[in-house]
Amino acid sequence: MRDLAKEITKGKHRAIARAISLVENNWSNAQEMMKKIFPYTGKSVIVGITGVPGSGKSTLVDQMLGPLRKNRKKIGIVAVDPSSPFSGGAILGDRIRMMRHSIDPDIFIRSMATRGHLGGLARATGEAIAILEAAGKDLILVETVGVGQDEVEVVKLADVVLVVLVPGAGDDIQVFKAGIMEIADIFILNKADSPGTEKTEKQLKAMLELGLKKEHMPPVIKTVATEGKGTGLLLREIDKFIAGSDQDFLARRKKRLISWMLRDIINEKIYQAVIQNIHDSEIGDFVEKIYQREVDPYTVADNIIKKLKRV
Amino acid sequence: MRDLAKEITKGKHRAIARAISLVENNWSNAQEMMKKIFPYTGKSVIVGITGVPGSGKSTLVDQMLGPLRKNRKKIGIVAVDPSSPFSGGAILGDRIRMMRHSIDPDIFIRSMATRGHLGGLARATGEAIAILEAAGKDLILVETVGVGQDEVEVVKLADVVLVVLVPGAGDDIQVFKAGIMEIADIFILNKADSPGTEKTEKQLKAMLELGLKKEHMPPVIKTVATEGKGTGLLLREIDKFIAGSDQDFLARRKKRLISWMLRDIINEKIYQAVIQNIHDSEIGDFVEKIYQREVDPYTVADNIIKKLKRV
Repeated sequence: MRDLAKEITKGKHRAIARAISLVENNWSNAQEMMKKIFPYTGKSVIVGITGVPGSGKSTLVDQMLGPLRKNRKKIGIVAVDPSSPFSGGAILGDRIRMMRHSIDPDIFIRSMATRGHLGGLARATGEAIAILEAAGKDLILVETVGVGQDEVEVVKLADVVLVVLVPGAGDDIQVFKAGIMEIADIFILNKADSPGTEKTEKQLKAMLELGLKKEHMPPVIKTVATEGKGTGLLLREIDKFIAGSDQDFLARRKKRLISWMLRDIINEKIYQAVIQNIHDSEIGDFVEKIYQREVDPYTVADNIIKKLKRV
Repeated sequence: MRDLAKEITKGKHRAIARAISLVENNWSNAQEMMKKIFPYTGKSVIVGITGVPGSGKSTLVDQMLGPLRKNRKKIGIVAVDPSSPFSGGAILGDRIRMMRHSIDPDIFIRSMATRGHLGGLARATGEAIAILEAAGKDLILVETVGVGQDEVEVVKLADVVLVVLVPGAGDDIQVFKAGIMEIADIFILNKADSPGTEKTEKQLKAMLELGLKKEHMPPVIKTVATEGKGTGLLLREIDKFIAGSDQDFLARRKKRLISWMLRDIINEKIYQAVIQNIHDSEIGDFVEKIYQREVDPYTVADNIIKKLKRV
């Protein structure tokens, strides 16, 4: 385990992969390693990307990699995948598309599933980010494959949040819930060679002017990711955003991530303590009694917690 | 609060709505009510429906309501909505579509968001189901708006699980992860008047034959929900499935739901105890120390839990 932490700080991809798997599959055993690498974390720029499926997020990320690599940036990519049993194909396709970068030793790509009883997505993603930071990545891209609430919450915790839209979805812009407008630091209007681009751009800007204070007006960058158009501009806007943000603002975001992770870690630890201290057979007895309506689950939960406190 | 429980058992819709809101927004205060209604739960048939967005789930549900109501069935509908900020419009449309049934005093329709730090979807959905059971609903339809892992897990806990597919998505059937094939008790091939219906049906059946043991082969029902075609057959298949299932099998599913709910309730209770016993300012101090890399979040979590145990 000590070796794993050391290998991570040397930037070894095999160690990063093993560490993320450990965090996902054997969390209790991952903690010594996480404690060891923790002092090396907190120094990377974290870029979050979200947007409707099919908006071209992965192609955009793919196109950003070239220029970033030219500037010798070391990059980590975490694709947060809600594990929809229906979307396996698309995700696989995205991963394959990025394969041409995957042999580059300075780009690490990993998709993470939202799994487990607890959600715990903030924790798992936070830990993957921490591992990549300790491995010396300059830039970490967190891409959400889905757009569920959880994924949006996670992306919100990045230093800069990109929201990808496409033209033609214009009529739907109105229905966006308020949340999405507020999380974007930069809007990307991808597939900007399609008909309806101008209309969608106008609608978006009109909405932004209505809904937001002028000083927070996020830029709208038009891209055609499949041709690499606009990605240079996008990268400059990201730099500008990071450079232009006051340090307190960025610190506040990083602290919010820490605060979320901390709560998730507390939860996971308590949960595991509950699981370890209650035998399955005992849970089974309780479930049987609840099933027979001899007792309600709230009373049972109170009793189990009381017992746990005595441990 | 005593009155609310009483009003629920009388089947009053206003009481059901208030109770579900209480469960969602003020869980601690909902527990007395939940304990009181608990003895009245466990007697309804729970039908889960999942499938890709746009497959016509809501129209199907809508079309099933007519025949069910003719048989004087009292119905509750819970739409589990992952609160995607991008899908607000569609969901609203679905709800409006069902409006023509919403004035029927024996049909109660409610959408539930997956919210909160804990996931807790099994708990929240389980509690909504329990409230509807106590209110005397004969049949409870649990419809997932999304197809994320959490939603699929929830739908799995129904007595009978319907999975809705559409033709033309044929090429994607191959990519379904194993999970989805196993949870379906009945497959619905909706929009079965579209080209490619036969091809998709063949592919699906071939996959089922490959992947499943013969005795568990779920039927594939073709429907055109917009015209009400096939919904009568679907309802008969549901009856057949429930009648044909051995009682142990159905009991096992109900117990699995209880077991999940119990774990979620324990978690939520412990989490709330943590929150109540640690001041925000204290969390803030810890976060600051973690941010400064003076300490790691795992060590902090252990300290907080130790403190909690002394409470």
